[in-house]
Amino acid sequence: MASSRRLSTPSDYAELLSRYDTWLFDCDGVIWSGDHALEGAGKAIDFLRDHGKRVVFVTNNAARSRKMLKKKFDRLRIAASEDEIVSSAFAAAAYLKEVLQFPADRKVFVMGMEGIEAELDAVNIKRCGGTSSEDNQFLPASDYSSLASKEAIDPSVGAVLCGFDMHMNYAKLCKAFKYLTREGSQGPVLAGERGGGCHFLLTNDDKVVPALGELWPGSGSLVTPLIASTKRDPIVIGKPHAPMLDTVKSLYNIDENRTIFVGDNLHTDILFAGHGNIDSLLVLTGVTKVEDCQAEGIWPSFIIQSISNIVASEGGQSSIAAMGVDGTGSIASL
Amino acid sequence: MASSRRLSTPSDYAELLSRYDTWLFDCDGVIWSGDHALEGAGKAIDFLRDHGKRVVFVTNNAARSRKMLKKKFDRLRIAASEDEIVSSAFAAAAYLKEVLQFPADRKVFVMGMEGIEAELDAVNIKRCGGTSSEDNQFLPASDYSSLASKEAIDPSVGAVLCGFDMHMNYAKLCKAFKYLTREGSQGPVLAGERGGGCHFLLTNDDKVVPALGELWPGSGSLVTPLIASTKRDPIVIGKPHAPMLDTVKSLYNIDENRTIFVGDNLHTDILFAGHGNIDSLLVLTGVTKVEDCQAEGIWPSFIIQSISNIVASEGGQSSIAAMGVDGTGSIASL
Repeated sequence: MASSRRLSTPSDYAELLSRYDTWLFDCDGVIWSGDHALEGAGKAIDFLRDHGKRVVFVTNNAARSRKMLKKKFDRLRIAASEDEIVSSAFAAAAYLKEVLQFPADRKVFVMGMEGIEAELDAVNIKRCGGTSSEDNQFLPASDYSSLASKEAIDPSVGAVLCGFDMHMNYAKLCKAFKYLTREGSQGPVLAGERGGGCHFLLTNDDKVVPALGELWPGSGSLVTPLIASTKRDPIVIGKPHAPMLDTVKSLYNIDENRTIFVGDNLHTDILFAGHGNIDSLLVLTGVTKVEDCQAEGIWPSFIIQSISNIVASEGGQSSIAAMGVDGTGSIASL
Repeated sequence: MASSRRLSTPSDYAELLSRYDTWLFDCDGVIWSGDHALEGAGKAIDFLRDHGKRVVFVTNNAARSRKMLKKKFDRLRIAASEDEIVSSAFAAAAYLKEVLQFPADRKVFVMGMEGIEAELDAVNIKRCGGTSSEDNQFLPASDYSSLASKEAIDPSVGAVLCGFDMHMNYAKLCKAFKYLTREGSQGPVLAGERGGGCHFLLTNDDKVVPALGELWPGSGSLVTPLIASTKRDPIVIGKPHAPMLDTVKSLYNIDENRTIFVGDNLHTDILFAGHGNIDSLLVLTGVTKVEDCQAEGIWPSFIIQSISNIVASEGGQSSIAAMGVDGTGSIASL
């Protein structure tokens, strides 16, 4: 795609509305920013539902479970049910269960927080590490001899799953390193087999994450010590990687031709949609400015100012600040 | 250099001895392995001293200060004085002081342990972070708003120095990230200026380190979250990078033509010597097998089995397991 379609009249918006049955939404920068709802977001979601559209929220956030994310939607007064929310933690659990057929008697070592643990629990995958108290303390140097002993390492661990972890520490990193480098760790992960194969998964590869109005190191940065020391690359679940969209597609039985992804990030959201052969709608309420499309050479199917513009098909709102890029690649604002 | 010289007779060893006045030694895998001295190491060092040679120990270990390393030499009964020891922590402090002319009123934020702190103290460079209790706890999520406030960040910090840190944690990482990305952080570091420039230094880039008979993630892995999140690359002090050898050269006023580096690691020690235009002697008591030279295409000036072989010039030891690689690159063992 070398350019994005321009939307100007109410009938353009009406056509957009009629063209897609399923609307997938990124959250941060689209629905909310940090801890407040973006203007008109609740109304736009209601509007889509009123027109019989299916709405799904697709977020790379792995720190929170779907249950915790649902509470945030409630707090911000945006209608959403738990089963309309797909997080990278949820998709990671689904990937382990459905795609990797992770054996019931093996465990996942978690380098992450409650959100990941809750999603593994929900699909009955055994786990260790994570928020357990023994893995969330600073181990004195003298205690590393116990980590070096083979007994310290649980032979039933068959995957290391990394995500955002505010309790990252060297001992947890060392344990993950041992699992990922022990003999046979790159082989298959089989039921009833002690030791051997160990998958390496990452919920999402965001190098920085926005919070409290600033940027902070994200999951994609926190996993790098393991990549550097083990010389292994994780399977990345979250946007723009395929496992996340595969999960969405199989869960909701999606018709690619009648689905659109709404996001604010060219690299995660718009590329993500493109990889999955679905159309995309860029909003400018997050990290992307309209001129970035040209600079990055990444073109969404459509560009609008904000999610609130979706209601423009109702008419009377044709003067809203919708943005378009014409066929020659030059930028036009209405 | 496409091959290594072969040493066989006592007179070959005598020539080696006479050719170099200054002998630089890596420690782990050459002098000791973990916590025990390698056989004949003490004797070989004594032998060189008896022949009027200057001996300097050059280690990437940044966790310990020179004082702490000196205690290890004493414990293993290998003669060494503190001023014959150059660690990457010591070299980092020297680099800040001499090369960067780090202003006396600016501070270094330390992502590392006591060894780095002691070396900064020794040259009167102010510091924060490191082992301070406030930077060695797991900060609850609710406390990150205080980190997000500009007041939490010390405006006098003009460098982030990373090394091996068994107390790495997310809050410390976030602080370092703030220093390295704040406005003007890539500019000059000037005396009397609050904020602005911030250097990014790494003691040593070892991705893994040996300890307790195993490998563990090393400084070169622990720094990667900062590299990934800030998109900045640190100045690396330790072997095989130039600052370490520059420090050694300026400290000991070395004649390159009459200096040899003895090490066990092709990538750190042998390349390090090559970068500095000094000859090198590979020992096989550490991480390298003789066939690795060919595989990696890295050739030391000489190869011997172990440091104990250095005394072979005394005669009567010509049957020791010295190894050589002949001019055609084929491997010959004596």
